[in-house]
Amino acid sequence: MNVGFIGLGNMGKAIATNMLRAGHQLRVWNRSPAPARELAELGAEVAANPADAARAEVLVSMLPDDTVARSVLLGQGVLEAAPSGLVHVNMATVSIGLVRELTEMHRHRGLKYLAAPVFGRPDLARAGKLNTVVAGDAASIARVEPLLLATSARVWPAGEDPARANAIKLAGNFMIACALESMGEAAALVHGYGVSAHTLLEILASGLFAAPVYQIYGSMIAAGKFEPPGFKLTLGFKDVRLALEAARAVHVPLRFGSVLNDNFLEALASGHGELDWAAVARVPLRQAGFERSA
Amino acid sequence: MNVGFIGLGNMGKAIATNMLRAGHQLRVWNRSPAPARELAELGAEVAANPADAARAEVLVSMLPDDTVARSVLLGQGVLEAAPSGLVHVNMATVSIGLVRELTEMHRHRGLKYLAAPVFGRPDLARAGKLNTVVAGDAASIARVEPLLLATSARVWPAGEDPARANAIKLAGNFMIACALESMGEAAALVHGYGVSAHTLLEILASGLFAAPVYQIYGSMIAAGKFEPPGFKLTLGFKDVRLALEAARAVHVPLRFGSVLNDNFLEALASGHGELDWAAVARVPLRQAGFERSA
Amino acid sequence: MNVGFIGLGNMGKAIATNMLRAGHQLRVWNRSPAPARELAELGAEVAANPADAARAEVLVSMLPDDTVARSVLLGQGVLEAAPSGLVHVNMATVSIGLVRELTEMHRHRGLKYLAAPVFGRPDLARAGKLNTVVAGDAASIARVEPLLLATSARVWPAGEDPARANAIKLAGNFMIACALESMGEAAALVHGYGVSAHTLLEILASGLFAAPVYQIYGSMIAAGKFEPPGFKLTLGFKDVRLALEAARAVHVPLRFGSVLNDNFLEALASGHGELDWAAVARVPLRQAGFERSA
Amino acid sequence: MNVGFIGLGNMGKAIATNMLRAGHQLRVWNRSPAPARELAELGAEVAANPADAARAEVLVSMLPDDTVARSVLLGQGVLEAAPSGLVHVNMATVSIGLVRELTEMHRHRGLKYLAAPVFGRPDLARAGKLNTVVAGDAASIARVEPLLLATSARVWPAGEDPARANAIKLAGNFMIACALESMGEAAALVHGYGVSAHTLLEILASGLFAAPVYQIYGSMIAAGKFEPPGFKLTLGFKDVRLALEAARAVHVPLRFGSVLNDNFLEALASGHGELDWAAVARVPLRQAGFERSA
Repeated sequence: MNVGFIGLGNMGKAIATNMLRAGHQLRVWNRSPAPARELAELGAEVAANPADAARAEVLVSMLPDDTVARSVLLGQGVLEAAPSGLVHVNMATVSIGLVRELTEMHRHRGLKYLAAPVFGRPDLARAGKLNTVVAGDAASIARVEPLLLATSARVWPAGEDPARANAIKLAGNFMIACALESMGEAAALVHGYGVSAHTLLEILASGLFAAPVYQIYGSMIAAGKFEPPGFKLTLGFKDVRLALEAARAVHVPLRFGSVLNDNFLEALASGHGELDWAAVARVPLRQAGFERSA
Repeated sequence: MNVGFIGLGNMGKAIATNMLRAGHQLRVWNRSPAPARELAELGAEVAANPADAARAEVLVSMLPDDTVARSVLLGQGVLEAAPSGLVHVNMATVSIGLVRELTEMHRHRGLKYLAAPVFGRPDLARAGKLNTVVAGDAASIARVEPLLLATSARVWPAGEDPARANAIKLAGNFMIACALESMGEAAALVHGYGVSAHTLLEILASGLFAAPVYQIYGSMIAAGKFEPPGFKLTLGFKDVRLALEAARAVHVPLRFGSVLNDNFLEALASGHGELDWAAVARVPLRQAGFERSA
Repeated sequence: MNVGFIGLGNMGKAIATNMLRAGHQLRVWNRSPAPARELAELGAEVAANPADAARAEVLVSMLPDDTVARSVLLGQGVLEAAPSGLVHVNMATVSIGLVRELTEMHRHRGLKYLAAPVFGRPDLARAGKLNTVVAGDAASIARVEPLLLATSARVWPAGEDPARANAIKLAGNFMIACALESMGEAAALVHGYGVSAHTLLEILASGLFAAPVYQIYGSMIAAGKFEPPGFKLTLGFKDVRLALEAARAVHVPLRFGSVLNDNFLEALASGHGELDWAAVARVPLRQAGFERSA
Repeated sequence: MNVGFIGLGNMGKAIATNMLRAGHQLRVWNRSPAPARELAELGAEVAANPADAARAEVLVSMLPDDTVARSVLLGQGVLEAAPSGLVHVNMATVSIGLVRELTEMHRHRGLKYLAAPVFGRPDLARAGKLNTVVAGDAASIARVEPLLLATSARVWPAGEDPARANAIKLAGNFMIACALESMGEAAALVHGYGVSAHTLLEILASGLFAAPVYQIYGSMIAAGKFEPPGFKLTLGFKDVRLALEAARAVHVPLRFGSVLNDNFLEALASGHGELDWAAVARVPLRQAGFERSA
């Protein structure tokens, strides 16, 4: 398949590599040129600019946030350059507001917009084992499914409205943040009785909570080690904010979400924005006056 | 091993059965006589009263709550009847306050008190696959470990202070309640975008959240089916309260815990106390005005 | 009127003094003898023990908390000594549970139990300007009203069920605590923009919020001066807890109440229990990382 | 003083009228022409457009929200038309973000920007008894003070940075919202014991809480009458949101604010957006299952 690919950060580069290896032809673009050159060595063509990348059957984009997505996709002639019928697969986590806006702009120009956000950190991306949720026009989904399978353990279709895939992605990240906070509170509780977070989380993560979220983050919390960050607290806060905004738009109170909002702010006020977002689990220890010993 | 056993509810009967099958000699007592008779058919002796059961090397108790534990263990001559050196293994979930009181009373009479609360619902108990956390005198733990292994996938020693095992148990149940609420909020968020809880939870419980808590309760939440209850909401609320009280005693704020407290109250006010405690996950849907369609 | 009076702390002594001055005959008792001697100089008789004080037409009690009330009123023969028909006016803030228990015990012995908790700190008590809420048997209220007016700006009848007066008192103290927290959060917000709490609270307390609660506590918060305590944070927390328990008993979630619970715990964990309870307003500043400069 | 005036809603018209009566010359503009004609009858000149109104010594604006302020002040040539040295007094409640933007744009063009938000509902505006908080260049404040005093009980200078006045205004509205919620929760608590909100709030609003906020809104809450709205719940929610955003920008968690956010959402989900914002006080009753009888 003839694919344009915009955005070669940690996640994007891994995904594009998997697509190349699966035999697709890629024309890639990135703001800084080094990752594009690396992919060129694996056989990709390097696009001169984002608009150039859009001259393809399928355009994949993986840009870090709403601001960059807006500037690259809407400010540099991408939609204007795209051939009619192009399927744009946006794999990034963006706001519901931007999804709605992009969906409308693509429809207007005869392009197809698919939201295909992914669950999984860079190591899963490199292993081609992401969980990819995709929503949009059913025929377009069928067309790009082989492409997505090149980088996914599983592809989960979620209906015709692209916003649905993003809602699922935001809800998933929200649940991870809830798991972090609940581990932090449980750790603070047992700390008050002389039990270490390590002891508590080892027991739970090998039984009822034997899932990657509790195992991976549980180890970080037990060790109190949040550097280097796999996913920065500032970015985690951004995703919590996106979930809260998506909920507000449909009049849904998220009470755990409000606690998360406040505890992330407290972590930021403590200067922990550059740590891994699992560091939010230290806020309950700090509120209990245990921080120094924690 | 010569074992007295008090309390043959769903959990207690399964545990006692496993101990019998492992070759231990049991003298059992229960408030209502039927379960004791069933165990007699498997070879147990039936004790005339709780004090009679306490004439043993090891006394195991599994009583439903603080009130019953207090009345049976302290009001019917059990400690007075127990031979010096007896090891009392309390496998129930009780308050930290009661643990402290019982520890002191046993010490005073030359008895050993071990707290050995378990993780696992009745089916795991029957299968002998509980996760048992045990705390108290190290030599006593060593003595009863074979007995506990008769009913446990794993036994987790947690130190010399019995309260530590209970703190871990309360923290674990607290984390389950947090998982319920987080699924409920995530389901309300995606419901606002036309996505069913089933779709959301299927995706998550097969990836990052692939753990029994999310799989078992996720199915109940997705199906909206909370009857018959595996663990009643009123009992779940009791455990949340015990965690909050244990935290309060050591000046630990639990902010998710406070949300749980309020949402359990809201569920009780809605008349849902007899449903499975997973029904607390419907509160966020109700707050968002989705209840009828949820 | 022939009055027994038990409990001569700051509040009790001021109230008893007002009653004496209004011409009533008092027989007073206090755990430590000094305050009773002071009242004797104003004409009171000193009772030998609590039971002795109860030999009167009306018994007024003003004991600091449930534990003391229980020990003095139930553990020292007071009800047994009281003549049939005695009206017991309990002016203290106690739990709803204890009110229910006392009501029943009085009824059982042919005594009348009135709950008459008061709003106002010791200076208002000395000035005879308390706001007294009274509930219980209507005829008994009519009988004791002149006595209560000796120490009250106004007496507010609240119905036949004594618990109603206590619910009103707990709700009032709860609202004060809410005002403290809201001032603390508002102060933290404007502090982030370089505005002092003093500037903010001066403006508000002279307009929309021109009420004693905001003026008195606003000055303390603006000055950051919480010593000597008028009402200790540990006692304020006790009252917040009583409100939360009263609410829980009737399945009423109090979401501001939950925040208060957690922030009081955080204040206690910071070692502020002996400060005036207005110090809870510093918790939001601390959470925002402003504590040192606040 | 030669004054341009933009925005003649309920508040703006009352303020402009006071300024006219105090002898100032006004050139007024409003989106719909009727209010401008009314003021013309009192002696005002009617401006052809917003830019025309800006040709003055002082420009006062009172526009309902950020969106309208942005469109009128920035989209219709107002700043371009304003003579160098003009003092722009913005009396509306706007976001901190917009204040910062406007401050910078005025500075850039040699204009003075003062933020002068007001406390008080339309009846106080008509009576000339607003509390006006003003921040910005000190000399400009001195110049416009007589103008502001024409409509204010008191003018409160708050420093050189215009954002400070807005922070104070947002904090004040936030505190009102907190008072609403605290009355709602207290009412739910006593309702559980058979006490009406009327009884509770009458007692409190005549004592410790004897302030307009508790008296005015307390009556509405006690009567359960939220129509016609003095200030719509949707607008109240907007102000709560502005406070939360202002706090977030400086990393200040507002935990009461989070409860307000969630309860306003719940009120909106219940279809109460067009009621007076005091209707948020019914949410606690609804959560307690009392709504029908409340």
